[in-house]
Amino acid sequence: MERQKRFLLNEDELPRQWYNIQAEMVNKPLPPIHPATKQPLNADDLAHIFAAECAKQELDQEHAWIDIPAEVLERYKSYRSTPLVRAYALEEALGTPAHIYFKNESVNPLGSHKINSALPQCYYCKQEGTTNVTTETGAGQWGAALSYAAKTFGLECAVYQVKISMQQKPYRSSIMRTFGATVEGSPSMSTRAGKDIITKDPLHPGSLGTAISEAIELATTTPNCKYTLGSVLNHVSLHQTIIGLEAEKQMAKAGEYPDIVIACFGGGSNFGGLAFPFMRHQLSAVSHQPSAPKIDFIAAEPSSCPKLTKGKFEYDFGDSAGYTPLLPMFTLGHDFKPANIHAGGLRYHGAGTIVSQLVKDGLMRGVDIPQLESFKAGMLFAQTEGIIPAPESCHAIAATIREAQKCKETGEEKVILFNLSGHGLIDMTAYDSFLNGDLQDFEYKG
Amino acid sequence: MERQKRFLLNEDELPRQWYNIQAEMVNKPLPPIHPATKQPLNADDLAHIFAAECAKQELDQEHAWIDIPAEVLERYKSYRSTPLVRAYALEEALGTPAHIYFKNESVNPLGSHKINSALPQCYYCKQEGTTNVTTETGAGQWGAALSYAAKTFGLECAVYQVKISMQQKPYRSSIMRTFGATVEGSPSMSTRAGKDIITKDPLHPGSLGTAISEAIELATTTPNCKYTLGSVLNHVSLHQTIIGLEAEKQMAKAGEYPDIVIACFGGGSNFGGLAFPFMRHQLSAVSHQPSAPKIDFIAAEPSSCPKLTKGKFEYDFGDSAGYTPLLPMFTLGHDFKPANIHAGGLRYHGAGTIVSQLVKDGLMRGVDIPQLESFKAGMLFAQTEGIIPAPESCHAIAATIREAQKCKETGEEKVILFNLSGHGLIDMTAYDSFLNGDLQDFEYKG
Repeated sequence: MERQKRFLLNEDELPRQWYNIQAEMVNKPLPPIHPATKQPLNADDLAHIFAAECAKQELDQEHAWIDIPAEVLERYKSYRSTPLVRAYALEEALGTPAHIYFKNESVNPLGSHKINSALPQCYYCKQEGTTNVTTETGAGQWGAALSYAAKTFGLECAVYQVKISMQQKPYRSSIMRTFGATVEGSPSMSTRAGKDIITKDPLHPGSLGTAISEAIELATTTPNCKYTLGSVLNHVSLHQTIIGLEAEKQMAKAGEYPDIVIACFGGGSNFGGLAFPFMRHQLSAVSHQPSAPKIDFIAAEPSSCPKLTKGKFEYDFGDSAGYTPLLPMFTLGHDFKPANIHAGGLRYHGAGTIVSQLVKDGLMRGVDIPQLESFKAGMLFAQTEGIIPAPESCHAIAATIREAQKCKETGEEKVILFNLSGHGLIDMTAYDSFLNGDLQDFEYKG
Repeated sequence: MERQKRFLLNEDELPRQWYNIQAEMVNKPLPPIHPATKQPLNADDLAHIFAAECAKQELDQEHAWIDIPAEVLERYKSYRSTPLVRAYALEEALGTPAHIYFKNESVNPLGSHKINSALPQCYYCKQEGTTNVTTETGAGQWGAALSYAAKTFGLECAVYQVKISMQQKPYRSSIMRTFGATVEGSPSMSTRAGKDIITKDPLHPGSLGTAISEAIELATTTPNCKYTLGSVLNHVSLHQTIIGLEAEKQMAKAGEYPDIVIACFGGGSNFGGLAFPFMRHQLSAVSHQPSAPKIDFIAAEPSSCPKLTKGKFEYDFGDSAGYTPLLPMFTLGHDFKPANIHAGGLRYHGAGTIVSQLVKDGLMRGVDIPQLESFKAGMLFAQTEGIIPAPESCHAIAATIREAQKCKETGEEKVILFNLSGHGLIDMTAYDSFLNGDLQDFEYKG
C-alpha cells in the first residue's frame, strides 16, 4: 500500500548548471546564416536582437556545462524541484504493465515550463542594461512567463500574441496584464510586418511565425529593447535542461531508468529540456556513459503541423516575414499557415536546429498526434491523475498512452517518462468544445 | 545568497492522522439541534444526509487524533506535502522586517485546498455503498475537487453552483464537466427550494445558502445519494488539518515558529485546517505544550460579509431554505444575501460551530477586508511571488500585508504564516475588472 508516488529534490540537490548538448554532439548543428550574404552569423550578429549572453550561449559548441547565475538559481528555488510523479492511476486505467512517470512542470509559476527560460533571459537583459523586452506568444504560456520574469527583474514587457490563441484563451492576456505587460494580437496594425500580413489576408488567424516577425521588428526599432524567444533556439533549450537534469536524479531516487522519454513538440524547448540530459549518455563514443541503456526519444507533434515527420530539412526563416536569420531545420516552409488547433504552442512551422540535427542522426524521432486523440488522452489523464493538461501536453500524453498500450500487448514492463509541460486551466474552452463534440481533426496538406 | 525558500516533507514524514480540535477544547461547541424538537442531533440523525463516518466525525468530542484511511493517504501522496514557501520577494516589496511564509495549497489537483476533504468524503461514501454524491459550490473550487474525487472513487456527482459565480467563472463548470459531473446554477428550477427562491426573487444571484438547500433536497429525495459539504462543518475542518500538521513540521525545518497565523474565512475549513494544529498548543491547561509561544490567529473575511465581526452568535440554519439542522454560530442570518463579490467561496452567512466557539472564547479573531484592498494585495503577491491568488486567498494576503506593515512601523521581526488556499487562474475576469477599474467595494448593511 505504501508505495512512493512523488520524488522531489532537496534544495542542495538542485542542478547548479545547465547542460549544453551542442558541445557533445558528434555532428554539430549547422550555423544560422545571413539571408543576403549566406555567411554564418556570430554571437555579435545575434546580440543585435538578443541579450549578449543568450547570443553567446546560442552558438556555444565548446562548453557542455554552463553555470546557472546565482540570481536565477535563487528564483528557481522558489518553485523547483518540480515533482516527478509515478502515474499509478493512469497505469491502472490503461491496464498496462508499463511504469509511467511524468515531470510535473504544471505547478510552476504561470503554469508551465516556460518560466525556466524567461527568468535567465530577463536576468541577462537586466545585467546588460536593457530596459525593455518583447516577444511572441502562442497559447500565451511563454508570454505569461516572460511578463512575470520581466516584472521580477524590473523590465518593461510587450507581447505579441497569436490572434487566434488570444481569442481562444482570453484569460491569458489578462494574466499578462496582471504582471504589467502590454499585449497585442498578431498580426496587428502596429508593425510593418503585421500590416503587410493583414493587407494580404485580412482574416489571418496569426501564427507563431507572424508574431515573431512583429516582436523582432519592435525590438530592432525600439531603443534599449531586446527580443526574447520561448522556444526553437538553442539557448532556450539549454535553460530548460534543468527539467531533465532534475528528472535524472529523481528517476534514480525512484530506482528506475527510462526506456522511453516523451515530450510534446512545438519548437523543441520542453522536449530538449527533458530529453537532452538523458540523451547525453548515448550521443556517441564521446559520451560519458556509452554503456547506459538506450532510450527511445519521442517528440509528439500535431498531425496537422508535422514538421519532424513530413517537413524538409533545409535553411528557412524562423518567422513568417523573413526577419530572422536562416536556420537549418526541418520545416514546413515559413509561410505555412497552421490549422487552428487549440495547442497554440505547437502551431509553428519549424523545428530547432539541434533537434533537427538529432532527427537526421537517428537519435530521436517524431510522432504525429491528431487533435481528437490528444484531447481524449488529456481527459483520461485528468480523470485519473487530477490535473487538466494543457492542449500541448495532451500530445505527449497521447504518445505515452500509445507506448503503454504497446506494452500491454507485448507484456513489456517499460519505463516511460513524459513531460507534463503545463496545465490546461486557461484552455477550458478547448475542453468545452471537446465535451460538446465540436472539436475536429485537421489533415496536413503539404 | 543561498537562502532556503521552500520547505517540503518526505513521504514518510506526512501526517498519518488528522487533528480533531473538538476533543481538546475546554468549552466544547454546542450541538446541532433539530429545528422542530430543539433536541440535539446524534450521528445517526446526521447520517441520513452525510456519510456515516463523516457524521460520526462531526460530533466526535473524544478522539483528538483520527487515522487517515490508507486509501486516502495514498491519494494525498500524489500531491502532498504542499510547499511551505518563504515569501522573500513580497517581504522585500513591502520593506518589512516580518518573515512571511505561505502554505501553497494552490498546487493541489484542481488548484485549491478543497481536494483534502473531497477525497475522504468520497472514500467514506464509497465504503458505505453510496453511488451518488451531491453538493453546493460557490466559486467552484469545492465542486471541482468533489467532481474529481467522485470520479476517483467511482461515484456519480451532481453539483449546484451559485448562479452568480457560475456566470463570473464559466471555466469552473467546464472543469467539473471534464470530470463527468453534472452542474446546475443555483437557484435552479430543478428543486422545490430553488423554485421557491426564484418565485420570490427571479433575479436572485444565488449564494452558498441557496445551493446547499438544493443539494440537500436532491440528496434526501434520491436513492443511495449522500450530501457532501466543502466547508463550515467540523469534519471538513478535520480533514483540512493535514495543512496545518504539515506546516508545523515545515516551520520546524525552517527553524521558525509563527507569531501570527492567517487564513481567509468563508465557512472555516481552510482557516481551521491551517490554524487548529497550531492552536492545540494554547487551547488551555489541558494542551500539550502550555508554554508554547502564543499565536495571534486571524480569520480574514470580506467586509461585505462580516459574520465574525458583525454577526450574532445564535442558533441558525446552515442554508437559506431551512433544510439543515440549527447550528450554533456567528451568523448574519440565513436569509442574508451576500453582495456579488468575486470571492464566491466567502459569500456565506455563517461561521462553523468550532470557529464560532473559539471566537467567543477569545482564542482567535476576525478582520474585515474590503474587496478592492483584497485585489490590490493579490496583485502585489502575484507580481512578487509569481502566483495569481484566488480572490478568496487575496483576503488572507491583505490581512498579512496589514500585519507586515505594522511590523515595519514597530520594527518587529514577527513570523507570519498564511494559507494560500488556491490560485486565481479561473478568476481572471475578476482581475480584468480590477485592472479596468470596474471593481467596487460593497458596504455591509446589517
